[in-house]
Amino acid sequence: MQIKKALLVLSLLLTAQTFAQTSPAAAAAKSYRRMHEHEIINEYVNLLSIPNVASDTPNIRRNAALISQMLERRGVKVRLLEVPEAPPVVFGEILTPGATRTLTFYVHYDGQPVEPAKWAGGDPFKPILRSAALEAGGRDIPLPGKGEKFDPEWRLYARSTGDDKAPIMAICAALDALNAGKISINANLKFFFEGEEEAGSPHLEQIAEKDRDLLKTDAWLICDGPVDQTRQQQVFFGARGVTGFEVTVYGPRRELHSGHYGNWAPNPALMLSKLLSSMKDDDGRVLVKGYYDGIEPLSETEKRAFAEAPDNDGLLKRELGLGWSEGAGKKLIEVINLPSLNIRGFVSSSVGATARNVIPSSATASVDLRLVKGIDHKVAVDRVIEHIRAQGYHVVETDPDDATRLKYPKIAKVMRQGGYNASRTSMDLPISKAIVAAVESARGKVVKMPTLGGSVPLYIFTDNLNTPCIGIPIANHDNNQHSANENIRLQNLWDGIETMAALLTMK
Amino acid sequence: MQIKKALLVLSLLLTAQTFAQTSPAAAAAKSYRRMHEHEIINEYVNLLSIPNVASDTPNIRRNAALISQMLERRGVKVRLLEVPEAPPVVFGEILTPGATRTLTFYVHYDGQPVEPAKWAGGDPFKPILRSAALEAGGRDIPLPGKGEKFDPEWRLYARSTGDDKAPIMAICAALDALNAGKISINANLKFFFEGEEEAGSPHLEQIAEKDRDLLKTDAWLICDGPVDQTRQQQVFFGARGVTGFEVTVYGPRRELHSGHYGNWAPNPALMLSKLLSSMKDDDGRVLVKGYYDGIEPLSETEKRAFAEAPDNDGLLKRELGLGWSEGAGKKLIEVINLPSLNIRGFVSSSVGATARNVIPSSATASVDLRLVKGIDHKVAVDRVIEHIRAQGYHVVETDPDDATRLKYPKIAKVMRQGGYNASRTSMDLPISKAIVAAVESARGKVVKMPTLGGSVPLYIFTDNLNTPCIGIPIANHDNNQHSANENIRLQNLWDGIETMAALLTMK
Repeated sequence: MQIKKALLVLSLLLTAQTFAQTSPAAAAAKSYRRMHEHEIINEYVNLLSIPNVASDTPNIRRNAALISQMLERRGVKVRLLEVPEAPPVVFGEILTPGATRTLTFYVHYDGQPVEPAKWAGGDPFKPILRSAALEAGGRDIPLPGKGEKFDPEWRLYARSTGDDKAPIMAICAALDALNAGKISINANLKFFFEGEEEAGSPHLEQIAEKDRDLLKTDAWLICDGPVDQTRQQQVFFGARGVTGFEVTVYGPRRELHSGHYGNWAPNPALMLSKLLSSMKDDDGRVLVKGYYDGIEPLSETEKRAFAEAPDNDGLLKRELGLGWSEGAGKKLIEVINLPSLNIRGFVSSSVGATARNVIPSSATASVDLRLVKGIDHKVAVDRVIEHIRAQGYHVVETDPDDATRLKYPKIAKVMRQGGYNASRTSMDLPISKAIVAAVESARGKVVKMPTLGGSVPLYIFTDNLNTPCIGIPIANHDNNQHSANENIRLQNLWDGIETMAALLTMK
Repeated sequence: MQIKKALLVLSLLLTAQTFAQTSPAAAAAKSYRRMHEHEIINEYVNLLSIPNVASDTPNIRRNAALISQMLERRGVKVRLLEVPEAPPVVFGEILTPGATRTLTFYVHYDGQPVEPAKWAGGDPFKPILRSAALEAGGRDIPLPGKGEKFDPEWRLYARSTGDDKAPIMAICAALDALNAGKISINANLKFFFEGEEEAGSPHLEQIAEKDRDLLKTDAWLICDGPVDQTRQQQVFFGARGVTGFEVTVYGPRRELHSGHYGNWAPNPALMLSKLLSSMKDDDGRVLVKGYYDGIEPLSETEKRAFAEAPDNDGLLKRELGLGWSEGAGKKLIEVINLPSLNIRGFVSSSVGATARNVIPSSATASVDLRLVKGIDHKVAVDRVIEHIRAQGYHVVETDPDDATRLKYPKIAKVMRQGGYNASRTSMDLPISKAIVAAVESARGKVVKMPTLGGSVPLYIFTDNLNTPCIGIPIANHDNNQHSANENIRLQNLWDGIETMAALLTMK
C-alpha cells in the first residue's frame, strides 16, 4: 500500500517534468527510436542472451565478438585490448577530421554472478518482457511484433539489462539515429567497453598503463549506474572509494554449555556487539578517532548541487520501509559525501532451528568502508584497527594460539581487504560544464551529484591517467542491480538513446 | 602446551586425593569391578550400540526393552510407564520388607541428536575405546579380552557414554556386586529411567502426575551431569531454570547496496549490536531493570559450600583458552547462582566468502536465560522485553507490515520460547545429609553444589511432587556432552559403580 502511494507521488513528479529538448541529435534519436523500437529491443535481447560473468571466458569472448560486430556495423573501427588472463576490452574509435576534442565512453559488458533459482523466470540470460516491475505485479508479456506498440513502463528482465549493457545498446541505437538523420559527429570518439568490472576490474590499471597513448582523451564518460530515484537524469563527478575488513573475536576454545558456564565464560557475540557498537553513534556518525580527518572540502558548486538536488528521502523511506535514517536528518545525497562504515553481516554460532544452548567460541563481522576524497583506503583501515586496540583488544592477523589466548583477555583477528581511493572531477571544468549542457539538451535539467555513493575505480582515469571523469547513467534506480530479477524500464533505455545521441555529437 | 600443563596440575591434584573408603558396599563394588571389567564394558558397549535419539521410536523401544532385561536379570521388578506418543519410562522397584525409606534413582536413557560426520569414528553408536581423550592424542585400541587389563584413563566413545547411560550401567554393575558380596539392600528402591530428557522432557510432568502414587518417594536421586572439573565427586541440590527468546531487528525491506545507501539506511546489525550491548556490562552483569529482583537468598550452608568448593577457574581458563571471565572476578561456582543472559548466536546477512557489499535487511539473535530460585521464567523474559522497549523499540511478535515499519523507527520482533523455573533442595535436610554421607563413604569428600549451572526440570519433583531432589553425577566434565565425540573416562565409570553401591545400600 505504502509502496503504491510512493509510486503515485513519483509518477506525479515525473508528469511535471516537461522540458524543451534542444538537442537536434536527441530529437532525431527520439524519432528514430519511435520507428524502430522492435529492432532495438530485438538486438538488445540478442546481446542479453549471452551469459556474461567475467570468469566465463568462452561466453565473455562471445559477448566481445558480438559487441565488436555491433559497433563495426555502425562504422566504428574496433580492436580488442588484451592482457593475459583478462576478458578483452572492446575498444572502438570514430576519428573526426578537424575535431578539437576526444571523448571516451566507458561501459562494461560483464555482469554480476547469477543465482538462477532466485530469478522469477529461472534463467537470467533468457530475457523476459514484463508489464511492470515484479514488485508492482508485473506479468510476463510476449515481445510485440514489428510495428506493434511498446509501453514505456514495461520492463525487460535479464542479467545486465540495467548494469551495464544498456549504454551499449543506447550508443548503437544513437549511432543508427545519427546516421539515419545525417547528423554529423564533431569530436573524436573512443569506446572502451570493459569485460570484468563486476569482478573488481583487476586488470584495468594494467590495460590503462599498457595502452596509455591509445587512451589519451579529454574526458572519460562513465556510462554506468542508475539515474536519480525520482527518475530524473543525473550526472556524477566522482565515486566513493572502498575497502573493508573482517573481524573475529574469541570466546572459549570450544562452544560451551550455556548453563554450566553461562555468566562466566566470556561471550564473543556480546564482545563483538560491544566492539561494533563502539564504532558508530546512534545517528550513524563514525566514532573511530580521526575517521573524518583529511576530507577534501567540497567546492561551492558542489555544495550548491546538494541544495538543488531533489529530496527523495521521504519517498525512499516509504519504498524501503524505513522509519528513520542515519545521518541526523541529513539527506542521502549529502551523507554519501562522507566516509561510511557499514556492517555487511555478522555471524556467531546459529539462530533459529539450529540454535543450541551454547556460549559460542567466536563471532565474526564483515565490514566495508566507503571513502571520500582525501582519505586513503589503507589509512582508513589503520584508523579502525587503532580504534579496536583502543577498546582493549590485542589485534592479530591469524587465529590466536594458546599462549596468545591466555595472555590477552580480548583478541581481535582483523583480515584487511583490498580497496581503492575515491575520485572526484571538478564540476567547474569547462568539459564538465559542456557535458552537463549536452545531457541537459537531451533530457532537461539534471541532478548533479558530486559523487556516487557506490564505488567505481575512477581513480585509474582521474589520478593515473590524469583525465576528467564524468558519469552519465541510464538505468532506473530500481533495476535490482547485482541481484536477481535485474531489469531495465523501457523509458530509461529510450531516454538513454537520446542522451547518448547528444553526447556523441558534442563539439 | 597450556592444556598439557593444566592436565598435569590436575593429575597431581588427583593423586593427592587419597581417602579411606568406609562403605562396605563400595569396597565390595571395587573388588567385584576389578574382577569383571571385561563383562561390564561388554554389556555397556551392547547398551551403547542401540541408537537413542528420543524421536527414533523403534530404537528407543529397543533401548527400553534391553534396559528392562538388564534390570530384571538383577532381580528388579520392571514395568514401562507410558503416555501416548512418548518414549516409555523404564520403571523398576526393589521392595525391601521393613524399609523405612524409599529412594528413587532418576536416569535418562535417550541422548542428544547426532551428526555422524563430526565423530572421529563416523558412527556415534559404534563404541570405540581410546587410549586417552582425542584432544590429548588418544588413539583407537581394541577391547581387551577377558582377564586383560583396562587402563582407567582409557575412554569409551559413543553417544550417551557420559550423558546419560553411564549411571544405568553403574547401577546394574553395583547390583551385581551387592549380590556377589551378599550385601543387603535396606531401603525401598525405585528406578525411573526416562527416554526423552534430551528432547526437553515434554511428557515428564504428565507421567509424574498420572503415576503420582507409584512415584511416592523420600528423595529423587538425579544421576545425570558431570563431576567437578578437578574430577572430584560432586553432589548437587538444584538446577538453574531456563528460558529464552529470539529477537530480530529490521533495516531496509531489502538488502541495499552499501555504497549507494551506506551511512543513510539504518544497519540492523549495528542496531542489534547496540541492543545486545545494552543488556550486559563489561563484567557480564545484566543491566536489564529488575533482572536480579526476587532472588531467593542462599542459606549459610550453601554459602559455606562455595567457600569449600575447589577453585577450578585457573585450570578451566587454561583448558578453554580464556584470558578472562565474566563476573568481576567471582568464581564459576558462585556466578552460576545468579541468573544469566547468554547470546546463543546471531546472524545478519553473511560473512566470509559469501559476504556482499550490502546493508542487511534484518539481524537476529538467539538468547537464553538461566534462572535461579525466586525468578519466574516468564517474568524474566517480560523484564527483558521491557528493557528492549526502554531502548526505544516497538516490540512485535510477527514481522512488521509496511505501516508498522514506517510508524516506528526501531522495531524488534521477540519470539518467546518455553522454559521452566529453577529448583533447589536444602542441603540441611536429613535426607540431604544422609545422601552426602553415603556418597562420601564411597568417594571421600564431595563438592557440594547448591545448584548446577545447567537446567534439569527438577521442579517437577521438588515443586509438583514436593520431594527433595539431589543430584549425583558420574561423568567426567570433559565428556563432550551434547557434542560429537562424547565419551566416558573409565575411572569415572568405575567410581560411579562404587557410588551407586553406597547409595543402593542406604538405610
